Amino acid sequence: MSHPLDPIFRPRSVAVIGASTAPEKYGHIILKNILDAGFPGPVYPVNPKATEILGRPCVSRIADLPFDVDLAVVIIPAAAVPQAVEECGQRGIRAAIVISGGFAERGEEGAALQRELVEAARRSGVRAVGPNCQGVNNPHHRLCASWPLLTLKGEIAILSQSGTVGAALMDWASEEALGCSAFVSLGNRSDVDESDLIDYFAQDSQTRVIAAYLEGVKDLDRFRQVVSQCAKPIVILKAGRTAEGRRAAESHTKSLAGRDELYSALFRRLRIHRADSLEDLYDAAKALAYLPRPAGRRILMVTSSGGSAILATDWAEWSGLTIAPLPEPVADSLRALLPAHYIVGNPLDLTGDATAALYRTVLDATASHYDYQIIIFGDPILGASEAATPGRPQLAIFLGGADVERQERERLHRKKVPVFPTPERGIRALARLYAFEAAPPAALPSALTGQGRWLAEPEALQLLVSYGLPVIPHRLVTSAEEAARAARELGFPVALKVVAPEIVHKSDVGGVILNVSAPEDARAAFMAIMDQAQRGAPLASIRGILVASMAARGTEAIVGMIRDAQFGPAVMFGLGGTFVELYRDVSFRLPPLSLPEARAMLLEVKAAAVLTGYRGQPPRDLEALASCLCTVARIAAEHPEIQAIDLNPVIAYEHGCVIVDAKIQVQ
Amino acid sequence: MSHPLDPIFRPRSVAVIGASTAPEKYGHIILKNILDAGFPGPVYPVNPKATEILGRPCVSRIADLPFDVDLAVVIIPAAAVPQAVEECGQRGIRAAIVISGGFAERGEEGAALQRELVEAARRSGVRAVGPNCQGVNNPHHRLCASWPLLTLKGEIAILSQSGTVGAALMDWASEEALGCSAFVSLGNRSDVDESDLIDYFAQDSQTRVIAAYLEGVKDLDRFRQVVSQCAKPIVILKAGRTAEGRRAAESHTKSLAGRDELYSALFRRLRIHRADSLEDLYDAAKALAYLPRPAGRRILMVTSSGGSAILATDWAEWSGLTIAPLPEPVADSLRALLPAHYIVGNPLDLTGDATAALYRTVLDATASHYDYQIIIFGDPILGASEAATPGRPQLAIFLGGADVERQERERLHRKKVPVFPTPERGIRALARLYAFEAAPPAALPSALTGQGRWLAEPEALQLLVSYGLPVIPHRLVTSAEEAARAARELGFPVALKVVAPEIVHKSDVGGVILNVSAPEDARAAFMAIMDQAQRGAPLASIRGILVASMAARGTEAIVGMIRDAQFGPAVMFGLGGTFVELYRDVSFRLPPLSLPEARAMLLEVKAAAVLTGYRGQPPRDLEALASCLCTVARIAAEHPEIQAIDLNPVIAYEHGCVIVDAKIQVQ
Repeated sequence: MSHPLDPIFRPRSVAVIGASTAPEKYGHIILKNILDAGFPGPVYPVNPKATEILGRPCVSRIADLPFDVDLAVVIIPAAAVPQAVEECGQRGIRAAIVISGGFAERGEEGAALQRELVEAARRSGVRAVGPNCQGVNNPHHRLCASWPLLTLKGEIAILSQSGTVGAALMDWASEEALGCSAFVSLGNRSDVDESDLIDYFAQDSQTRVIAAYLEGVKDLDRFRQVVSQCAKPIVILKAGRTAEGRRAAESHTKSLAGRDELYSALFRRLRIHRADSLEDLYDAAKALAYLPRPAGRRILMVTSSGGSAILATDWAEWSGLTIAPLPEPVADSLRALLPAHYIVGNPLDLTGDATAALYRTVLDATASHYDYQIIIFGDPILGASEAATPGRPQLAIFLGGADVERQERERLHRKKVPVFPTPERGIRALARLYAFEAAPPAALPSALTGQGRWLAEPEALQLLVSYGLPVIPHRLVTSAEEAARAARELGFPVALKVVAPEIVHKSDVGGVILNVSAPEDARAAFMAIMDQAQRGAPLASIRGILVASMAARGTEAIVGMIRDAQFGPAVMFGLGGTFVELYRDVSFRLPPLSLPEARAMLLEVKAAAVLTGYRGQPPRDLEALASCLCTVARIAAEHPEIQAIDLNPVIAYEHGCVIVDAKIQVQ
Repeated sequence: MSHPLDPIFRPRSVAVIGASTAPEKYGHIILKNILDAGFPGPVYPVNPKATEILGRPCVSRIADLPFDVDLAVVIIPAAAVPQAVEECGQRGIRAAIVISGGFAERGEEGAALQRELVEAARRSGVRAVGPNCQGVNNPHHRLCASWPLLTLKGEIAILSQSGTVGAALMDWASEEALGCSAFVSLGNRSDVDESDLIDYFAQDSQTRVIAAYLEGVKDLDRFRQVVSQCAKPIVILKAGRTAEGRRAAESHTKSLAGRDELYSALFRRLRIHRADSLEDLYDAAKALAYLPRPAGRRILMVTSSGGSAILATDWAEWSGLTIAPLPEPVADSLRALLPAHYIVGNPLDLTGDATAALYRTVLDATASHYDYQIIIFGDPILGASEAATPGRPQLAIFLGGADVERQERERLHRKKVPVFPTPERGIRALARLYAFEAAPPAALPSALTGQGRWLAEPEALQLLVSYGLPVIPHRLVTSAEEAARAARELGFPVALKVVAPEIVHKSDVGGVILNVSAPEDARAAFMAIMDQAQRGAPLASIRGILVASMAARGTEAIVGMIRDAQFGPAVMFGLGGTFVELYRDVSFRLPPLSLPEARAMLLEVKAAAVLTGYRGQPPRDLEALASCLCTVARIAAEHPEIQAIDLNPVIAYEHGCVIVDAKIQVQ
């Protein structure tokens, strides 16, 4: 034996200290499971009162055990455990799995007993799992010192700070014929902890992936060290992420549950996959253990269920995978292979007529053109397990197949081809294989635009004014003198903007001057803009220059409307340009829009705090903004020719709001 | 019959047009399923060549059918379907389920045939489901005009634009003994669509919830109308949410897939539950059909699995549920009921020793004190189904119970108590019951604070300077004259800030004056601050006033460090105050920190675009910011007494960056 934990996982023989004749007791259940799993070495029940249990003669004292025992499973009252462990060590037993509870999980007295246990173990050279645990199962060594009795060999090692959570994972793996390489219930982690086990499984030839449920890491330094040296993927479900969850975790296993963000940072640094839920932990482990590594992100979907392929497509796009079109020669060769009525594309829908042979044909013909093939069996396809080729970059998803599905999944799992139960879970699991690669750059969301021509700004503003909307005071002028007069009337400072239908990006041609604060400056600004605009856009038909008041500082909002081909008009609200563009932080409503609904829209955006009194600023006038939204909905209803409205920014104040810029698109 | 669709769901007798003798053909499978499901009326196979199929005598032509047939199931080549439907109508048949494909899903020729089909149906008074569909199943009428053969009666009606997706849902419901009230495969929706079916199920006494998979809504106006009149919960999984998914959906069923945000707005307005995935659709339907409505958000968790309860707690907190402590008298009565070693709390962990009777005792004793009880069975608990009380506000979650779990789940489902497979899925499903209530206000994330005292600002800045960090130029002064001199040396404009350890919120006591632009103003500002600070905080020991340059405008960032009890130091980066506070848009790293890692931190925040050249602005100096982060990590390593560093803001420019404010907390 080469690893200090070998006596736990590959003992020559096992003693069950506290073996019981009562079938409902763990001291009986575990002995029975060890025997029923077919443990290959001698098994000694230790019980001072019984002569034999389950056909095995009892040993009455630890001191009477033969010297070849490597592992003791201990199920006796807590108070007797430290001494029993000490006696085990004296008898040459090098490992103990302490099932018994009544230690640190039961307050200070128990904690003292646990310290005694640790000292006894250290003193006598015994490595201890637990106490207060559900044992260890190593199907590859036919050692089921745990419950339930599960014996299927697989390649995922499960560690769990909760025995029941770990047992649930193992039950899933067994139920779908995938099995696991080992299961360890950590219990109170008095001695053996997750770091010891990662160190062990890193070198265990049966284990390909380590999956763990943890409420906290016991020894961060050692954890960092063993994880950095582990070449196998590790997936962890860390519970206790919220304040309440952390409180519950600290009460459950008395372990320090650090800040959740720091676990994220740690896991990222160590390239540990972080699971979001129990099923995600299971799926990720399955994917990382059994899916071949991809060469790239180009995927082909072959399906018998059009709907499932659409669900998979949504999740593939969210995961940064590329549903690349079929190269034309490949499409041609598929057309030759497939019945005439098939539509050849990606996703490739073989429809309900698909057979396993047809899948196979199509998969073979396209394998070399894609990085991954997504095979969706959406019907009870007989022989589906023959369609996939073990070792190829293929992801199998099976649903809607009733009993055929369950049979074929089992066949595929016996061939080590993992099968996922829904399109969404399959694609999410596949995405794990790309987790630590640089993601392709995310596209910025497209702007809110429809089709048609934009109204000139004066007309756009005029329309809004006619609906009683609070538009920034402005004048259209055609001479420097008019500009100065308009500026005086409006009051300084003012902004000047060129008005010409052909000039979309006014600033780019020097068409905007802000903060003009005197009549002579207004004159000069008029001349400068005309001059620059004529040079920058010589063919534009300049209608004049818009002189507008400068709005006071306030909170910038966006009010929009877009008309959808199917839905008709929709009203949008967002806060400030960056919030909308970088966080997509907007709310939508379909008219008709009531004032309370509009108010709900305002408060629905994530940055709503900016409106309601953020950082000691006064709250903004929600009624004024809500009223703007309702009016925009009314404009949309009364002007079917308007395709889009973009009021950006609308500046909101403690009292009132003002529309500074407006674009209106008409058919 | 009172609803126009009754002939589809509750026909007196059924004809199978295109019944087949070949067992692999749908014309055979459907006939067999109708017979095997025990359809209570006459069933007529129509086939011109056979004399009998499955023991039923064949009718050779539609015209020869008796006059009591209400429903025809049509499985003949597409080209013959329109005429067959017309003949059905002439024979008094009022409904047809057209299984045959070869219509709009196969291009323009098929679309023309589909128009013919619709015209034939309209002309002859036939309502048609399909074509290109997987049929209809109504277990309550023992009508399985579909496949697979499923007969279990339940209370969820399933509509699906994808036959296979709907069949998968039905298979799940059947597999876990929950059943469904009906299944309808919409196929190409040539006539009967989701609106017709919602209208039907709204009045169907067997249906409590309508669950639908849709790729788009066919007729929005009618949809709005029928949904507004439907008093039952509706859950919809709308596929085709991304650009690629939408493209795939449009190619799948040729239906217009509107913008995803608008579907969200529509569903919200109509109080339709939107599902995120197939499993979410299933779970939500199950919860809405079978869980009693809650009176409030206070929940109690009773568990045999501590780990599962922690997972549930995290999700409960995320869902706005309250894990309320046990009222003291209730806790006392539980202590009297439970063995002494139990820890009485919420979650209440009955541990692996729990029996069904113990659950029952605890649940009865606490029922009146909570709005919902979450029952987690985390072990193979025999008789678990006896622990729950049908009709009570209880959510049952069962995992890790192997075969016992599967048996007890079936028992609970037969009592109409829904069981969820994981803590996360259970809590998410429960949260559906609160979906259209106002959510409790979300707490703003707590600031990045540790424990200890804050260094005075001059010392904090001095420490940063000593590490070569780019700190805003500043002087500490103690007289008006010094203030004026310092301002002149630094260059105008400057800011003045009071320095006094007791004054934390300087602005509140008038302790800050910005944009001071002349020596005499600096003198006046000094006097004003001293005066106001002495009045506002008479007991503060004012050390002087800090005169600092005003930083030019740039991009505001935050660089921070916090020392965690377990993790040690962690470095944080975020952009601007609002991004950090409202969107928690920050990145963390655990030192040591390399320059490339620090650069990755900068680009990891969602708003990273404002650093890399947003809206035509020049990119910001990533090297300078990254270098700040590395230096902060170094300070943390070399000064174990420092608990937290908060550089806010750090203003980033095209070249370089500058730290404007700094707080440093020491032990």
